[in-house]
Amino acid sequence: MTTTTTTDDSATIEAVENMPAITISRDFAATAAQLVRAHTDPDVVLQWLGPEGTTSTMDYWDARSGGSWRYVHTIDGEDYAFHGCFHTVSEDRLVQTFTYEGFPDSVALETMTFEELGDGRTRLHTQSLFDSYEARDGMLASGMEIGVNDGYAKLDRLLAADAL
Amino acid sequence: MTTTTTTDDSATIEAVENMPAITISRDFAATAAQLVRAHTDPDVVLQWLGPEGTTSTMDYWDARSGGSWRYVHTIDGEDYAFHGCFHTVSEDRLVQTFTYEGFPDSVALETMTFEELGDGRTRLHTQSLFDSYEARDGMLASGMEIGVNDGYAKLDRLLAADAL
Repeated sequence: MTTTTTTDDSATIEAVENMPAITISRDFAATAAQLVRAHTDPDVVLQWLGPEGTTSTMDYWDARSGGSWRYVHTIDGEDYAFHGCFHTVSEDRLVQTFTYEGFPDSVALETMTFEELGDGRTRLHTQSLFDSYEARDGMLASGMEIGVNDGYAKLDRLLAADAL
Repeated sequence: MTTTTTTDDSATIEAVENMPAITISRDFAATAAQLVRAHTDPDVVLQWLGPEGTTSTMDYWDARSGGSWRYVHTIDGEDYAFHGCFHTVSEDRLVQTFTYEGFPDSVALETMTFEELGDGRTRLHTQSLFDSYEARDGMLASGMEIGVNDGYAKLDRLLAADAL
């Protein structure tokens, strides 16, 4: 694995060897239940997802197994839309599909699991499995780590403010 | 790629090199629209999916982008249940998630495309992308080719009977 980001408070973002996949891990001062809520409650999701300066709107969001979702990020006046379906929504595991509509034929399968570390901390593990190496490498080259780390920093602030 | 099945009328089932994926291709005496209907109309799906001798029932089936599905195959008195969500349902492309409930934590992402060959024939291309090589290799070792080829032979008969 190649670690592309390892600085303090940053997520660990790795390209998986021999799989068109990216793994992300990040520790939070939160319970697993709070992190599940951060990824499923639309009012919470809208507050942290995306780079600093993002305004987000939900088109639809039905966070249950078999539901679907679509949201739009507005950044510097430009709209970026994303959509997918929820394969699994449970207390310890989220599995969903993910398409950035700028590349409408590319689909990733995202799996999130929640590892409780004790002392009120939980490690979020995400695997994004892409349908080609080109799609995976394009995502890694896109500056995704800015969005990931900015978003998680916003989530840290929501948790510190007892907003979850 | 390793071709595991190449006999007449059989689907070509291949393990993809360097991806935890299986591709299947199969020609039909059908239009793309008929093959899309064969994979989306629940009354048609129930008539051909699975090995010879399968009785199938739909639990739910909502074949639109963002919908979900679950069906049960009964074979020799044993039930085998499967479920997923539809990421894309369009005239030329179907993308859906797929879980066999015997391995409930394993999820595959299936993409089907339809290549019209002329003379009323269409080649169905399926890629099943698994979340691990173990899951992919387990599927290849499961006798899947029997279910695939039996199902497609039943679909051939439906097409020959103008049932689509």
